Amino acid sequence: MRSEEYGRDSPIAAFATIPGKSAITLIRCSGKGSIECTAGVFSAGKRLTQAEGNTIIHGWIVSPREKVDEVLISIFRAPKSYTGEDSLDICCHGGVTAGKAVLDTLMKNGFKDALPGEFTFRAFMNGKLDLTRSESVMELVSAKTDTGRRHAVNRLSGVLENEINEIKKALVEVLSGAEIFLDYSEDEIGADPDEAAGRLPGQDKVRETLARLKKLAKSWQTEKIYQEGVFAVIAGRPNAGKSSLFNLLVKEERSIVTDIPGTTRDWIEAWISVEGIPVRLADTAGLREARDLVEKIGVERSRELMEEAELVLYIIDGEAGINPDDTDFINEYKQKTKGTLLLLWNKADIASLPKTLPAGICSNTTISVSAKTGEGVAELTGAITAAVLKQTDREDSNTNTAGDMAAVETAAVGTARQKNLVETAAAAIEEALHLAASDEPLDLIAPLLREAVNSLGEITGEVSTADILEEMFSRFCVGK
Amino acid sequence: MRSEEYGRDSPIAAFATIPGKSAITLIRCSGKGSIECTAGVFSAGKRLTQAEGNTIIHGWIVSPREKVDEVLISIFRAPKSYTGEDSLDICCHGGVTAGKAVLDTLMKNGFKDALPGEFTFRAFMNGKLDLTRSESVMELVSAKTDTGRRHAVNRLSGVLENEINEIKKALVEVLSGAEIFLDYSEDEIGADPDEAAGRLPGQDKVRETLARLKKLAKSWQTEKIYQEGVFAVIAGRPNAGKSSLFNLLVKEERSIVTDIPGTTRDWIEAWISVEGIPVRLADTAGLREARDLVEKIGVERSRELMEEAELVLYIIDGEAGINPDDTDFINEYKQKTKGTLLLLWNKADIASLPKTLPAGICSNTTISVSAKTGEGVAELTGAITAAVLKQTDREDSNTNTAGDMAAVETAAVGTARQKNLVETAAAAIEEALHLAASDEPLDLIAPLLREAVNSLGEITGEVSTADILEEMFSRFCVGK
Repeated sequence: MRSEEYGRDSPIAAFATIPGKSAITLIRCSGKGSIECTAGVFSAGKRLTQAEGNTIIHGWIVSPREKVDEVLISIFRAPKSYTGEDSLDICCHGGVTAGKAVLDTLMKNGFKDALPGEFTFRAFMNGKLDLTRSESVMELVSAKTDTGRRHAVNRLSGVLENEINEIKKALVEVLSGAEIFLDYSEDEIGADPDEAAGRLPGQDKVRETLARLKKLAKSWQTEKIYQEGVFAVIAGRPNAGKSSLFNLLVKEERSIVTDIPGTTRDWIEAWISVEGIPVRLADTAGLREARDLVEKIGVERSRELMEEAELVLYIIDGEAGINPDDTDFINEYKQKTKGTLLLLWNKADIASLPKTLPAGICSNTTISVSAKTGEGVAELTGAITAAVLKQTDREDSNTNTAGDMAAVETAAVGTARQKNLVETAAAAIEEALHLAASDEPLDLIAPLLREAVNSLGEITGEVSTADILEEMFSRFCVGK
Repeated sequence: MRSEEYGRDSPIAAFATIPGKSAITLIRCSGKGSIECTAGVFSAGKRLTQAEGNTIIHGWIVSPREKVDEVLISIFRAPKSYTGEDSLDICCHGGVTAGKAVLDTLMKNGFKDALPGEFTFRAFMNGKLDLTRSESVMELVSAKTDTGRRHAVNRLSGVLENEINEIKKALVEVLSGAEIFLDYSEDEIGADPDEAAGRLPGQDKVRETLARLKKLAKSWQTEKIYQEGVFAVIAGRPNAGKSSLFNLLVKEERSIVTDIPGTTRDWIEAWISVEGIPVRLADTAGLREARDLVEKIGVERSRELMEEAELVLYIIDGEAGINPDDTDFINEYKQKTKGTLLLLWNKADIASLPKTLPAGICSNTTISVSAKTGEGVAELTGAITAAVLKQTDREDSNTNTAGDMAAVETAAVGTARQKNLVETAAAAIEEALHLAASDEPLDLIAPLLREAVNSLGEITGEVSTADILEEMFSRFCVGK
């Protein structure tokens, strides 16, 4: 889809809720003339056209043939609306027919189907939201855990937008200072202390912006994990307790997405939230174990799952002890895949973890658990969190783990696009500082700073191209 | 659940939409103090408590720890609301986390989870809706086809309520006339022409109410079909064209419920709308055909499906002609089951239906179709409609088939409860007329008419018991 297809102010409408057996279906309408178009199919049309913004009118959507549905209509007058245009929210009865019949009636009276993201696109075009906040809207809708929601709300309330604007402002100030030196001779304006010392004027300020940008870029490692989650697989020999551990974790950490309709699998999986990290947890117990799952990473399907996984929870049956199959599996897994392997010593309630284990298996890194009593689960979730966030340094993981209120106030990027632009800006600044250190002239340095300012402008959408907008908004859901 | 558990006016809240990846999640709140409770967790709390009814305020739901979500709140002031109480609709961001976080925040600030149907229960208790219209709300949400929606809207707009009240009024008038005769002697009030002739006063009027009630009771046959739909199975020998016909019907009549998540089947099925009748159509082609589906109604699963089905579409491969397996199947099916069998002569584009067919198969009742070209599909859908509505007489099916505008204006019952009460009322009136015809005294007749009036009062809820209300509202969905 091309952004050119988005109407700039024509009346559009779409479901804003999922049609199904619920009390309400909400239809969102926006655009020039949208109130008048709706009035043409509304029992109290005159009241609707005369209604003030932010008010609600009750009545019936009617077609020439019949009463279609009894509805409540919320009226918003430009520019005081989500899109900045005249808009309406039509609250229909739920179910699969009423909302559809209302939408069909609207389509026959001047509305067109809204494209994915078109409402938010218009909000952006009309200056209601910058691009970071536009993107956070879809991030919020897609959030898988409450920590994900919290991070999205942070950006929706403008924390990232402010951080970018502050950094940009600092750079612009340095630039305008530098450009004075480019435009005038030294005699005319007097010597700048930095310049006199052969440095870029405001060099410390520039260094500070670089540090802030690097911190922002780094934040993506953690943000990405909270948004997209990780895939973890439970493996182990038959009867090691795979299903018991799966059930325990799903219950303790509560399943966050109970079912993904339309997909058929021969293994069981569930999304769980581990300290706010969405974890797609798969239990390979259901896979036909050709006598032995472990037999050289065994069955083809298990192998695929484990290769795909970022994390393998390998269960050892504590009662039976470590078997050569276990050591073979562990050694082969470590050689062949990039994922992290966590070793769990199960049945700790009846068989404690021995101090000495076979070569290649260290009891310090083996977690003692009991899928039966729940013993060791807290330690396990802590170990999962640490393993998942391992690439982020101590400081980052401290400010970003679930429940930490610092995350609410700290600026972080929320999309790969933002992160790439932050890195582009940082690279340009780094290069500028490098040139300054080599005493290169300002007229080589200033364009690099201007490039950085431009990249930051692209993040908030101050500088934007049709391509960027197209790419971004077409990934939104319809009605948003 | 017992209706006693419904709070009468305490603050309740619930999702009114299906949580998931959508633009909006709507939370409905109602009850005394609901506006104040919400204000306690709203960024513009003071504006909210001072807001007039039917207005909208923008702001943030906040907890002591954080911003929870940016929302729009619609305010309704008692009695001008759905429930008749102070109410709010909170428009949150969609997705699985934002709405949940907002609802959790409300629960911590004085709200309780609404029980299924509790909002509509309160609407009824506060005189906003009679029982026929309350029931139509849930009927509308559950409607499977647009015809189903139309029938529900008919009742929602009060057509049944008015009809019941008119009939009741007529009976009450007759009763009050009759009771004059019971209370006073003939000398005091003068002779009534009916009474003089030995008849129940207003006997013609009573007969008319009986006719109207009988028509209403009969309407349930058709209404039930439009609400609940029928189950139809496509059967036939391998390669007769079962899947092609299935695909053709699903495409032509468009699938109305594409998927029922969570159910696993080894056959394919879809809900389609055939002239407004919801038809759950199953294709047995996917069932393993143990060499031959037809082999004495074949495989166990197909047998179960066909025994469950109200309608079997049995396809004969026109090119191959009728096989002894076909005739065996047809004869056995007719003997063993109660469903209707429609015979389809497929591949009509290359092999036309012969005039003479084997004994027991009549070419007049066999429909000639081509799953390949679509030939004969209109005739087939007509035959399905006729077969499904067969127990309703000509006149009824005329006024009730899809698209017929008469249905929009004609009163019909929408639930088994209503139908049973209509029949109870009709039986009492019939008995009263019978006694009148046998010249029985008015003091035996009048109580029967009073009984009829009571039954009609139960339909609209003028007369109601806790048991009735409990039964009815607990079948609603949460949030309604």
